[in-house]
Amino acid sequence: MLLKDLRTHYTSKIDPAEMADKKVSVAGWVHEVRDLGGICFVVVRDREGRGQVTLVKKKTDPELLEKARGLVRESIVSVTGVVKPEAKAPNGYEIIPEQITLLNEAESPLPMDTTGKVDADLDTRLDSRFMDLRRERTTAVFTIRHEVLKAVRGFLSSSGFVETSTPKVVATATEGGTSLFPITYFDREAFLNQSPQLFKQMLMSGGLDRVFEIGPIFRAEEHDTRRHLNEATSIDIEASFCDHFDVMEILENMVAYVYDQVIANCSRQLEVLGVELAVPQTPFMKISYDEAITIVNSYGEESLKWGDDLSTLSEHTIGNHVFNETGQSHYFIIDWPTEVKPFYAKPYEDKPELSKSFDMMHRTMELSSGAQRIHDPEQLKSRIESQGLNPEGFEFYLRAFRYGMPPHGGWGIGCDRLVMTMLGVENIRDVVLFPRDRRRLSP
Amino acid sequence: MLLKDLRTHYTSKIDPAEMADKKVSVAGWVHEVRDLGGICFVVVRDREGRGQVTLVKKKTDPELLEKARGLVRESIVSVTGVVKPEAKAPNGYEIIPEQITLLNEAESPLPMDTTGKVDADLDTRLDSRFMDLRRERTTAVFTIRHEVLKAVRGFLSSSGFVETSTPKVVATATEGGTSLFPITYFDREAFLNQSPQLFKQMLMSGGLDRVFEIGPIFRAEEHDTRRHLNEATSIDIEASFCDHFDVMEILENMVAYVYDQVIANCSRQLEVLGVELAVPQTPFMKISYDEAITIVNSYGEESLKWGDDLSTLSEHTIGNHVFNETGQSHYFIIDWPTEVKPFYAKPYEDKPELSKSFDMMHRTMELSSGAQRIHDPEQLKSRIESQGLNPEGFEFYLRAFRYGMPPHGGWGIGCDRLVMTMLGVENIRDVVLFPRDRRRLSP
Repeated sequence: MLLKDLRTHYTSKIDPAEMADKKVSVAGWVHEVRDLGGICFVVVRDREGRGQVTLVKKKTDPELLEKARGLVRESIVSVTGVVKPEAKAPNGYEIIPEQITLLNEAESPLPMDTTGKVDADLDTRLDSRFMDLRRERTTAVFTIRHEVLKAVRGFLSSSGFVETSTPKVVATATEGGTSLFPITYFDREAFLNQSPQLFKQMLMSGGLDRVFEIGPIFRAEEHDTRRHLNEATSIDIEASFCDHFDVMEILENMVAYVYDQVIANCSRQLEVLGVELAVPQTPFMKISYDEAITIVNSYGEESLKWGDDLSTLSEHTIGNHVFNETGQSHYFIIDWPTEVKPFYAKPYEDKPELSKSFDMMHRTMELSSGAQRIHDPEQLKSRIESQGLNPEGFEFYLRAFRYGMPPHGGWGIGCDRLVMTMLGVENIRDVVLFPRDRRRLSP
Repeated sequence: MLLKDLRTHYTSKIDPAEMADKKVSVAGWVHEVRDLGGICFVVVRDREGRGQVTLVKKKTDPELLEKARGLVRESIVSVTGVVKPEAKAPNGYEIIPEQITLLNEAESPLPMDTTGKVDADLDTRLDSRFMDLRRERTTAVFTIRHEVLKAVRGFLSSSGFVETSTPKVVATATEGGTSLFPITYFDREAFLNQSPQLFKQMLMSGGLDRVFEIGPIFRAEEHDTRRHLNEATSIDIEASFCDHFDVMEILENMVAYVYDQVIANCSRQLEVLGVELAVPQTPFMKISYDEAITIVNSYGEESLKWGDDLSTLSEHTIGNHVFNETGQSHYFIIDWPTEVKPFYAKPYEDKPELSKSFDMMHRTMELSSGAQRIHDPEQLKSRIESQGLNPEGFEFYLRAFRYGMPPHGGWGIGCDRLVMTMLGVENIRDVVLFPRDRRRLSP
C-alpha cells in the first residue's frame, strides 16, 4: 500500500495544536522553494491546501538540504517529518523534514503560470488543462460542479426518481433537424443522440413513473458562442401523471436545493472564487410568452411579433426586467406558441396555438426547457408530420404511445449552464474539463 | 397541477386501517378487469404495486359500471373513490369509485404479455421494452440498478472522489487497437471514446487527487456474446499517490457497500427476482496470474503457457475453483504479464515483465480491470512505442506527465456486469434499458 507511505494527511488536515511533534507525511506539488541561505522553505501543495516544510541549515542534514534547494517547482514530492506549530505558516504549522522523496520531476519552463499571478488566456489554459487545474480557482469550479451533481442526484432520488442510462448511439434524430453527428456503426449509419427525450418518454409508458438521467448530449451546431458546446452534460427528468406546472415545481425546488447545498458544503471554494450565493426564492416568477414579447417591445430595442423565438438580446432584456422588478435571477417563460416548440410539446386543449411548455431562465441565459408532453399517439403523429418529419422514422417511439401511455411531463437542464450562472462564469469552457467545440477536439 | 388531481397515493401507500372511508385517487395501468355480473373488479397497477377498485352492480351508477366493464387492459386510468379495508384484495383494501377517468386507451392485441404468465423471448421484450418494463421482474432489475448507482456514488463521494465528465468525442484511440466507432465531426474524423482512461490520468496531473466518472463507453468490437455490448456504462476511478493495492482496497470495499445497500433498500425487488444476496467478504482473495495459469492447467481442460491471456473457459475454471475453496464469488487476479496489459500499466521495478495490474473477477466473468499506472513520461512513451503505437498521437496526454505527475492508480468496472452478476442475470441485455449491439440499434 503506497498511500500510507506517501501521505498520512492532506496539508489542510494537520491540526498544529493536536499534532505538534507528531510524525506526518504529506504529498503533492512543489509550490514554492524559498532559499534564504540559513533557512529554506518548501511549500507543498495538494488538493486541499498547502503545507510549509522548513529546513534550518544548522540543524539539517546537508544532503537533505541540498535536495530541498534543488527541487524544481511543480515537481511531485512526498515529505515525512515532524509537525511544529508556526502561526506564520499556511494552516498554522510547519513540517521539519526527515525525508523528502522526489516522485516526478517537472520540466522547465512550465507551459503556463499556475500561481494566479500571471493571467493566461482561455486557449492556453484549455490546451494545458492539467496545469490550469493547479490554479485554486479552477479546482474550486470543478469541486463545486461535483457538489452540484451530488445535490441534483440526492434531490431527485429522494423525490422518487429512478436513475436511467439511455443510448447515445441512435438510429433517428431526436427532434428532427440537421444538427447531428453521423457515426459509422458497423455497416450502418447512426447518430450521436441530441437528448434522451424520446427514450425517457418511452420509459413513462413502461411504468417507471419518474426517471432521471445525467449524461452527455451531442449537437452538431456550428455555433461559436460563450454558452454553447457541441458536447454538453444534460440533466433530464420525465414524470408521469404530471403537467408542466408539476414539473416546473420540481425544477425550481431542485435548483434551490442545489444552491443550498453548494452554500452549505463549498464555502471555501466560493470564497476562492469571490462568489456570494443566495438560494433563489421559490416559486420562481412565471411570465407568459405574450408578456415576454410585450416586455421586449416596451424597451424598444427590438420589435418582436407573436410567433417569433426570443433572441439572446430579448432574453437579456427580459432577464434584467425581471431582476429589476423582483431582485431574482431565475424565472419561467410559459405558454409558448406551439409552432416554436418541438413536436412533443402538448398544445392547450382549448387554445391549440399555445403549448404547455416552458423555458426556465437565468437572468443571463436559458437554463432549461420543458413541457407537458403529448400522450395521445394520433395527435403526436400529426404533430410530427406538421413539422415536416416522417413518422415512419419515429415508429419505435410512437408504438410506446399506443398501449397505455400516461400523461407526462419533463425537462432538461444544462448542467454546465447551471454551474456557470451560479458562479458568474462567463464562458461555458470554464466549467467543462475538456470542452468540445467546432475548433477544439483535443485534449 | 395535474398530479394532485390524478393521483394522491401510489397503490402500495394506502394503509387500509388508517385511511378507511377516506377519499383517494390512484392512477396507472388497467391490470385486470374481472366482471362477475353482480360485481366488477378493476385492478389498477402503478410502479409500486396494485390496488383493487370494486363496483357492486346494485350500488353503482350504471354509467360508471359500464365504463369500468369496458376498460381495455393496459389502458391508463385515474380512479377517485373511497377506501374500504378488504383483506382479500391486494394491499388489504379496495376502492369504491366515484369517478374513473380514462386517460389513454390501449390498442389490442398487446405486443406482448406483461403478466408473466406467457414467456416472451428476449428480442420481443427488447423490441417492446416499454411493455417489458410492465413486468414486475424487469422493473425490479432497473430499480436495483438505480440503487447500485446511488450506492457507488455515495461510497466514492464520501471517500473523497470528485465526480467528473470527460469527453466522449475524441481525436485519438484510447488504447490503440481498431475497435473504434468513427464520427464525422464537422470537417474532421473523430472517434467515440472507448474509456475515460487518458482523461482521468490527466486529471491526476491537475491535482484533483481522486476522481470518478460514471458514463457511456463505446467499443466497436464485433462480439456477439451474452456479456458484451457496443455501448456500456462504465464506473471509472483514478487516485493519486496510490498503488494497485490501494485501489483494489477501494474497489472491494465499494462492491461490498453496493451489495449492502441493495440488501438494505431493495428487499421487495430482490424477492420479486427470487435473489438472496449476501455481502461479499472483504478483502477479496488475491491470486497471481502465475497461480491462475497453474489452476487452469491443473484441471486439464486447457493448456495455457505463461503470457497467454485468459479465455472465458479459463475464467470459469478459476472462478469455480476459488468458489469451491472459499465460498466467495469475487476475487482478484494480480501481477499480469506486462505485455498482456495496456501500455499505461506500471511494470514492477524489479521484474519488468510483470505489471502492477489486476482484474477483479466474479465467478462467472471479469468485472473490472485496474493497475498502478506509469507516471514517468519517458517510460510511458517507450511503452506506447513498444505496443506499436505512435507517441505523436498521444502528445496531448504525454504532456501531462512532464510537469509534475504523481504516482497514481485506478480501475474501471462495468456497471452492467456488476448488476448482472449480483442478480444472476444471464444476458447483459436484461440489465440495459435499450441495449446496443451489432444487430440492434433500435429502439
